[in-house]
Amino acid sequence: MTIAILGGTGPQGRGLALRWARAGVPVAIGSRDAERASATAEELQALLPPSAASIRGMDIRDAVGAADEMVVLAVPYAAHDATLASIRELLQDKILVDIVVPLAEGNPRAVAMPAAGSATEAAQQLLGEAIPVVGALHNVSAATLNHLDHAINCDVLVCGNAMPAKDKVIELINKMDVTAYDCGPASSARCIEAITPILIRLNISKKVPFTHAGIRIWAPDA
Amino acid sequence: MTIAILGGTGPQGRGLALRWARAGVPVAIGSRDAERASATAEELQALLPPSAASIRGMDIRDAVGAADEMVVLAVPYAAHDATLASIRELLQDKILVDIVVPLAEGNPRAVAMPAAGSATEAAQQLLGEAIPVVGALHNVSAATLNHLDHAINCDVLVCGNAMPAKDKVIELINKMDVTAYDCGPASSARCIEAITPILIRLNISKKVPFTHAGIRIWAPDA
Repeated sequence: MTIAILGGTGPQGRGLALRWARAGVPVAIGSRDAERASATAEELQALLPPSAASIRGMDIRDAVGAADEMVVLAVPYAAHDATLASIRELLQDKILVDIVVPLAEGNPRAVAMPAAGSATEAAQQLLGEAIPVVGALHNVSAATLNHLDHAINCDVLVCGNAMPAKDKVIELINKMDVTAYDCGPASSARCIEAITPILIRLNISKKVPFTHAGIRIWAPDA
Repeated sequence: MTIAILGGTGPQGRGLALRWARAGVPVAIGSRDAERASATAEELQALLPPSAASIRGMDIRDAVGAADEMVVLAVPYAAHDATLASIRELLQDKILVDIVVPLAEGNPRAVAMPAAGSATEAAQQLLGEAIPVVGALHNVSAATLNHLDHAINCDVLVCGNAMPAKDKVIELINKMDVTAYDCGPASSARCIEAITPILIRLNISKKVPFTHAGIRIWAPDA
């Protein structure tokens, strides 16, 4: 089951490609620059053992076409809407996994939410309800994803209006040995996306004794 | 250093009174019904060892007067603005700690944010910038707080526009053996308050194998 990662040459996209390919999921990296996508794919493949699934690079539209069902949107927020508009008609029968955080321009410690309420809701509005949008993976540190010998130090908060699509995305995330929680409808993305600038703030803070902070759901002590 | 807890007869307020008094911080519980506040204070005191600080009960205005500096607002959201308006002129030289989550009426799995963006921002607007408002303790399960033999299974995300006030509140929270993080300005409350209905959703979910979920900031694996 091939998945597409659009913006797959960026730090988040690269880390996800590595993690999923290592777990046996073939990845098509999509970029505006197909040659760069190819070069990135080759570079990432070389970091993985022979047992890993393939990572291929191509342009964005070809990557969407290569995906059996899941298309992960990992472009910078500035390219969020335009990328979606350019692939909308290719997304029939697919699921869009939106990991984009609308960080404020020039200030990664704040969000500037779109009028729709969040990037996930904006994507759902733009694509129409027939194409399920699932928000996920907003709060995972790219550095951690790319550190293949480290476990991923967070849980993943998943949201979206279509339950079966969410279940499939949770299953896909679980393959990376990460726990994912269904956090409700797309509107929960207003909270989930906004957690990222808070983590960035903690990473920058001199008072916090670590960087690459993650967030976890915690059960009560027994 | 006596602190006031307004709405201290509710489950969140009771739990906080117990935890702070046990840690040696005298508490003045404020309620619209002074007799009920007194009865609650007596009941709570009886649950604590003799080494604990005192818990007293009184009406809301007397509780604000009894507070040396910190006034914790723990009323239901429906009473948030009216309570603040009724004590505004008593809050000079005090710090308001706002723990209120604007849950949607009839649906605790969603927030209905006020026009100001969050309850914390609404409080700051209502009181004016001369009285520092610090948002905190939104995501702590009342059940856990009241289970005195359990550790508190979460970190506390703190926000507000006044740094010295935040530092004092973080120190007060640390007394409960809980880690608290400065998560930025009051606008971060749009995210932090909205985490609570997500936790409530997970607590209700049959797919999540525990209730009273908390949220934690997690350092990367070494």
